[in-house]
Amino acid sequence: MSSTFGTLFKVTTFGESHCKGVGAVVDGCPPRLSLTAQDIQTQLDRRRPGQSELTTDRNEADQVTILSGVENGKTLGTPIALLVPNKDQKPGDYKEMSKIPRPSHADYTYQIKYGIRASSGGGRSSARETIGRVAAGAIAEKYLKETYGIEIVAWVSSAGMVNAPYLDIEQITRKQADKNIVRCPHEETAQNMIQAIIEAKQRSDSLGGIISCVCRNVPPGLGEPVFDKLEAKLAQAMLSIPATKGFEIGSGFRGSRMCGSEHNDPFTVKNNRLGTLSNYSGGVQGGISNGEPIIFRTAFKPVATIGKPQKTVDFEGKEVELAAKGRHDPCVVPRAVPIVESMAALVLMDFALIQEMRR
Amino acid sequence: MSSTFGTLFKVTTFGESHCKGVGAVVDGCPPRLSLTAQDIQTQLDRRRPGQSELTTDRNEADQVTILSGVENGKTLGTPIALLVPNKDQKPGDYKEMSKIPRPSHADYTYQIKYGIRASSGGGRSSARETIGRVAAGAIAEKYLKETYGIEIVAWVSSAGMVNAPYLDIEQITRKQADKNIVRCPHEETAQNMIQAIIEAKQRSDSLGGIISCVCRNVPPGLGEPVFDKLEAKLAQAMLSIPATKGFEIGSGFRGSRMCGSEHNDPFTVKNNRLGTLSNYSGGVQGGISNGEPIIFRTAFKPVATIGKPQKTVDFEGKEVELAAKGRHDPCVVPRAVPIVESMAALVLMDFALIQEMRR
Amino acid sequence: MSSTFGTLFKVTTFGESHCKGVGAVVDGCPPRLSLTAQDIQTQLDRRRPGQSELTTDRNEADQVTILSGVENGKTLGTPIALLVPNKDQKPGDYKEMSKIPRPSHADYTYQIKYGIRASSGGGRSSARETIGRVAAGAIAEKYLKETYGIEIVAWVSSAGMVNAPYLDIEQITRKQADKNIVRCPHEETAQNMIQAIIEAKQRSDSLGGIISCVCRNVPPGLGEPVFDKLEAKLAQAMLSIPATKGFEIGSGFRGSRMCGSEHNDPFTVKNNRLGTLSNYSGGVQGGISNGEPIIFRTAFKPVATIGKPQKTVDFEGKEVELAAKGRHDPCVVPRAVPIVESMAALVLMDFALIQEMRR
Amino acid sequence: MSSTFGTLFKVTTFGESHCKGVGAVVDGCPPRLSLTAQDIQTQLDRRRPGQSELTTDRNEADQVTILSGVENGKTLGTPIALLVPNKDQKPGDYKEMSKIPRPSHADYTYQIKYGIRASSGGGRSSARETIGRVAAGAIAEKYLKETYGIEIVAWVSSAGMVNAPYLDIEQITRKQADKNIVRCPHEETAQNMIQAIIEAKQRSDSLGGIISCVCRNVPPGLGEPVFDKLEAKLAQAMLSIPATKGFEIGSGFRGSRMCGSEHNDPFTVKNNRLGTLSNYSGGVQGGISNGEPIIFRTAFKPVATIGKPQKTVDFEGKEVELAAKGRHDPCVVPRAVPIVESMAALVLMDFALIQEMRR
Repeated sequence: MSSTFGTLFKVTTFGESHCKGVGAVVDGCPPRLSLTAQDIQTQLDRRRPGQSELTTDRNEADQVTILSGVENGKTLGTPIALLVPNKDQKPGDYKEMSKIPRPSHADYTYQIKYGIRASSGGGRSSARETIGRVAAGAIAEKYLKETYGIEIVAWVSSAGMVNAPYLDIEQITRKQADKNIVRCPHEETAQNMIQAIIEAKQRSDSLGGIISCVCRNVPPGLGEPVFDKLEAKLAQAMLSIPATKGFEIGSGFRGSRMCGSEHNDPFTVKNNRLGTLSNYSGGVQGGISNGEPIIFRTAFKPVATIGKPQKTVDFEGKEVELAAKGRHDPCVVPRAVPIVESMAALVLMDFALIQEMRR
Repeated sequence: MSSTFGTLFKVTTFGESHCKGVGAVVDGCPPRLSLTAQDIQTQLDRRRPGQSELTTDRNEADQVTILSGVENGKTLGTPIALLVPNKDQKPGDYKEMSKIPRPSHADYTYQIKYGIRASSGGGRSSARETIGRVAAGAIAEKYLKETYGIEIVAWVSSAGMVNAPYLDIEQITRKQADKNIVRCPHEETAQNMIQAIIEAKQRSDSLGGIISCVCRNVPPGLGEPVFDKLEAKLAQAMLSIPATKGFEIGSGFRGSRMCGSEHNDPFTVKNNRLGTLSNYSGGVQGGISNGEPIIFRTAFKPVATIGKPQKTVDFEGKEVELAAKGRHDPCVVPRAVPIVESMAALVLMDFALIQEMRR
Repeated sequence: MSSTFGTLFKVTTFGESHCKGVGAVVDGCPPRLSLTAQDIQTQLDRRRPGQSELTTDRNEADQVTILSGVENGKTLGTPIALLVPNKDQKPGDYKEMSKIPRPSHADYTYQIKYGIRASSGGGRSSARETIGRVAAGAIAEKYLKETYGIEIVAWVSSAGMVNAPYLDIEQITRKQADKNIVRCPHEETAQNMIQAIIEAKQRSDSLGGIISCVCRNVPPGLGEPVFDKLEAKLAQAMLSIPATKGFEIGSGFRGSRMCGSEHNDPFTVKNNRLGTLSNYSGGVQGGISNGEPIIFRTAFKPVATIGKPQKTVDFEGKEVELAAKGRHDPCVVPRAVPIVESMAALVLMDFALIQEMRR
Repeated sequence: MSSTFGTLFKVTTFGESHCKGVGAVVDGCPPRLSLTAQDIQTQLDRRRPGQSELTTDRNEADQVTILSGVENGKTLGTPIALLVPNKDQKPGDYKEMSKIPRPSHADYTYQIKYGIRASSGGGRSSARETIGRVAAGAIAEKYLKETYGIEIVAWVSSAGMVNAPYLDIEQITRKQADKNIVRCPHEETAQNMIQAIIEAKQRSDSLGGIISCVCRNVPPGLGEPVFDKLEAKLAQAMLSIPATKGFEIGSGFRGSRMCGSEHNDPFTVKNNRLGTLSNYSGGVQGGISNGEPIIFRTAFKPVATIGKPQKTVDFEGKEVELAAKGRHDPCVVPRAVPIVESMAALVLMDFALIQEMRR
C-alpha cells in the first residue's frame, strides 16, 4: 500500500525533503514510447517552487534524470526509474518542529504512527513527494496523448473567496491557464485572485482554493465497475494530494439538489456514436467513461504553515505560541495544477491499459 | 481490480440482479471473532427495499447465509463466503432496455465496455451489488467495535433542497437516524424531507441528497501516507457507491474559502493525549487519523430511473421517448445510509489491520 | 494474500470440509465466452473422490452451480461465483484431532497461526479447497483453448518407486491419461503403479508420486520478467497444491549437472518463426514463453493420513499412538492430475490477459 | 506485476546493464530499524563479479547509496530507495546480439514480448537486476535477525557433477560457506568443484549447480494457507532468479518415492513447545512454518553464454555460428548464494509482517 499507485501502470514514489533525492519508479509503461527527460521536465517546471511572487522563493531546479527503462529515446517496457536530487536543504528551519507539532500538519500523526519522524517534519506528507507523481504523470500523459489524443487540462477555478465564472471546457488549454501566475484562464478573475493571495501573504496568512480539471477525448469504456469506478479512483487520486478536502465529478454536490428529470443526460447521436446532450454525469456512467469530457473539481484547504502566531501545545502538552519562520507559499493552488493533471493521467493510464487487454 | 476492495481485509463481491444470488467473500478476517448471520442481517435489513413508502415496494427479504469461514459461532481466519439468493426476478420489466440505453444509467457504458450486458441492464451497477458490501461491512464493524470501540453513524443531512441543521456529531446514534423513514435525526427536517420525496414521487420524478457520516473512537495512526491516505480511500469507497457525485472530509469545499489562521486546528490536551480544539481537518492529518472524530459527506445524484417521459435515442440512434415502468425508489438516500457506513467500515478495518502489524 | 490468485484473472477460493460449501469467485473473466456448468463439471468429476479403488470411497457428487456472471450461456465480464455444496459431513471422524495434531498435517500450524481450527483439522489445507481451483481452472482452460488453441495435459509419471518411461509430449492427451485409474498413459507402468498403490493400502500405508504436465500451443511472449517469470508463477502455483514438495521445469535438477554446450537450445526455423531444436529450457527463456511446449514436473509426498499406528505426542505433549480411522486415499496423485492442469491454466490465463494488453 | 515482490514489505527493482544504474525501492520497511549503507554493502560484495578466478573478471564495485527513507541511521517507515550506478559499460561486446538471439538467453523472448530490446540483450534478465534484490534482502535480513533471531545460510551443494555430502544444517554458517571461492563448506568437495569449474572454463564451456539454503529460528505461524503457502512463495522467489530450473523443500523429489509411515514427521516436545523428530516436511506444514529449520534446494542450469562455438540461426532465420566473446562466468552458482539468501529473506519478511498483524 501507500507509496504505489496503479495495477498495470504502477508508480512507486520515494523520498522526503532532507534525503538525497525524490523520485519514482514507473513499472508497466508500454514499450517503444518515445521518451526524453525533457518530456518530463516541462511538467516538473510548472510544479516547482519559486515560479513567481505567489510561491515560495526557494528556487529548486528540480532537474530529473531517467535512471533506467529508456534506451535511445525509447521505452523498453521495463521499469523507468526517475530521480530528482534534493539540493536546497536547510534543516535548521525545521528545528522547532521537533518539539511542537504544527497545527493541521502531519507532524503529530507521523510521530504516533511510526514513532519517528523525518527532521523536515511531515516527511512524506511534504509537497516534495509530489515530484515523483508529476514525473510519472508526464509519461502517462505522453502515452495517452499519442495513443488516444487525450488532453488533460486543469486550472484554478477559485482562490480563497474569488471564483472564476463558467469556462468552456471543450476549448480550454494549458497555455491559457499558464498565461498568468495564478493559473486561472479568466484574466479578470486571475487578477483578483492574485490580489487576494498577496493580501493573505501580507497578513502572514494563507488561502485555499479549488482546481477544476477536464479530460477530453477519453474513449468510452475506461473504468471498472464496483470498487474501481473511474470516479472512485479519481477521487482517491485527488484526495491523495496533500491539503485536499473534497472532490466532485460532473454535477457534484450541486447535483444532489436536482431532480432526476433535470439531471439525466439524454442520449443523442454525435460523431457517429452515442453521446449525451447535457453532461451532469461528468463523463462517466456506472463507473465507466462514456466518451463525453470528464470534468471534476478538487478542493484545497489553506496552507497550514503560516507566519501568523498560533496558540497550540507542544508534544509534552505545554502551551506555546508558534509562528512559522522558513519559506512557504501563501497559496499552493497554482502549483498544484500540474499535480492534479498528473494524478488524472495516472488514473486514466491504468484504466486504458486494463481496457486495451479486453479488445 | 474492480470487484475486490482492501489489502488485508479483502472483500470480493459478486452477483447481478437476475442471477442466482449476490454476495461476497471476505478474506483476511481475524480469527476468533464471534459472528452469526444475525450480526450481518441487521444492516442488510436497513438496506433492503420495501422498508417504507419512500422506497420501492419490492419486498426483498435478502436473507444472508454464511457459507464458510465460521464454525461454532467463531471466525476461523479463513475466507467467509456470504450468499443472499435473488428471489424477486421479473426480467420482463427490463425488456425495453435491450434496445434503449437509459439516460444516466450504465446500460450504454457496459455495452461499450463488454460488448454484452445483463438482461437487467446495468448488471453490476445495480443497487443489488451493494448487498455484498453491506454484509462484509457488518463483519468489519463488529471487529472495529469490539477491538477499538469504534462507532460509525451515518444519516441523511439533505434530501433534494431540504437540509438538516448542524447536528452534534459526538452524540448522534444509529437509533436516532432510524427514528424516521428518511433517516434524518432532526425530526422537523425529516418531515420536510419526506414531504419533498413524496411530492417528487407524485411527479414521477426523483431526488438526490447528501449523507453525512461520523466515525468515533478511531485510534490515531490509521491510514497510509501518499496514495492510500485515509481520506483518499474513504473518497474512493464513497465514490464507488452507485449514484455518488461528490465527497468531502472535514471542512470540505467550504474549507477552500477559509484562511489558514481560521482553518488550522490548534492542539490541546484531551484525555491525556493530544487532541485538537477545532476539527476542520475532519479527523485526519497527512492521510493519518489523529484521534478526533472522522467526519465526511457524500453527495448522491437523483435516481436516474424515473416514470416521467424522457426524450432520448435508442442504441441505433433513433429518437424515442422513454418512461420507466417497473419499480424504483424516488430517493435512494435513506437506504444508502447503511451502505455508507459499511464502506467506511471496510476502509477503517483494512487500515486497522495494517497498523496492528506495526505495533 | 492467501486465498486469491492472479492479477487480471483473479480467483478467490473459499470453504473448508465441514461448512456449507466450497467454491470460488472468478473476477476478470473476459466477456462473451460460452460457458455452462457442464464445462466445469467435467474437470471436477476427474478430481472427486470415489472414482476407483485407489481413492477414498467417499462418493462426493461435487455438483457445481454457477451463481453469477453468466447469462444465457455467455459470460458477462462480471465476477463468476461458483458453489459446490458440502454433502458428506461426518465430523465424528475427526474428533481425535482436537487433541492430537496429526504428524505432517496442518493441525499444529493452523492452531499456532490462528489460535483456532476447523473441526475437520486442517481446514483450508484440506483437499476440498482444491475444488474451487479446479472449477476456476476449467473456465481459464476454455478461454485458452478457444483463443489460442492451448492444450494442457498432465499425467502421473511416477507413483512411489514406479516410474513411467519418457512419453511423447507433443502427442500425449488427457484421454490417454484417463485410460486407467492411475492416470499414467503408459499402460504397463500404470499396472505396476496400481499394484504398488494397492500394496501400500493393504499395509495401511501411503505413497507419493510425480505429475508431469505439458502445455502446448502457448504463444511466445507470455510471462513477466523478474519476480513473475512464467516458471516462477508455475512454481508457486504447483507448490500451493497440498502435499507438494518440489517443482522443476525443462531440464530441472538434472539440468544442473549438464554443460552449457549440451544444455543450450539452438534456434532453428519452425512453422515460419524461430523455434528451438532441443527444449531443455522447457518452453521458457528469461521468464517468458518461447513458443515451445512448456513442460514441468511436480513432486507429491505420500499422503500423511495413514491407518498404520504412529507414535507422536498430543497438543499437551503427552506421548500417544495415533492410527487414522476415517477414509483416505492411499495415493492422491491420480486425483491431483486435474488440479495440476487447473493451476497451470490459471497461470497461463493471467499472463495471456496481461500480454493481450500489450498488443 | 513483474518488478515488484511482496505485499507489506514491497520491493520494486529497476535497471538494466547499460542504463545509469540499478537498484530498488523498498516500501513497507518497519520504522526505527538501524540501517546503514554498509549493512547492505556486505551482501552486495558477496554477489559482485570479479571476486575470484571462477567468476568474470569485470571488477564492478557496485557501491550502494541509500537515497531516501533513512535518517540519522534509522529507517523512517517510508520508502527506502537504493541506487547502484552502472560503471563498466561496454556496449560493444553485445553488438552481435542485435542480429543473433543467443541460445537459451532471453534475447528472442524479449524481442517477441516487447518489440524492442536493451542493447545489452536480455535487459532485465541480466544478472545485474539481482543487485536490487540483494540490497533489499539485506534490509529484510537485518530486521528478521534483530526481531526473531532468524539466520539464513545458503551454500553450494553441487557444481556440475560434484556433490557435497550431507552437512549439518543446524550449525552451518555463512562464514563456513565463504571459506573458499566456490562457497561449499565441505572443503574437500569445494576443491573438486573448483577443479571442475576451471576445466569447464578451459573448454570454453560452463557448469550449473545446486544451492541449498536453511532458515533457522523461524517462528511457527509464518506463511499463508492456499495460494501463498510459505513453500509456494519460496518456490516463486527461487524460480524468479535467473537460470533456475527447479526447487524442492524438505524431502523434495526424493520424498515422492517414500511411504507415508517413513515420511511423516512425528511430534515431540522441544524447548517447551511441539517440534518434530524428523524434518522431511522441511519446516512447513500446510503452507505454514512449524518452527523447525526451513530447508530447500534450488537448481541452476549451466551458464548460457559460452565461448564454445554454437550452431544456431539469426533473427532472420539464417544459419550462423556463434561464439561469445565478452566476459562471463563459467559457473554462477557461487555468486548466486547471496541472491538465494536475499530472496528467502524477502519471503520471510513479508510473511513476518503479515503475521505480526494477527497478534
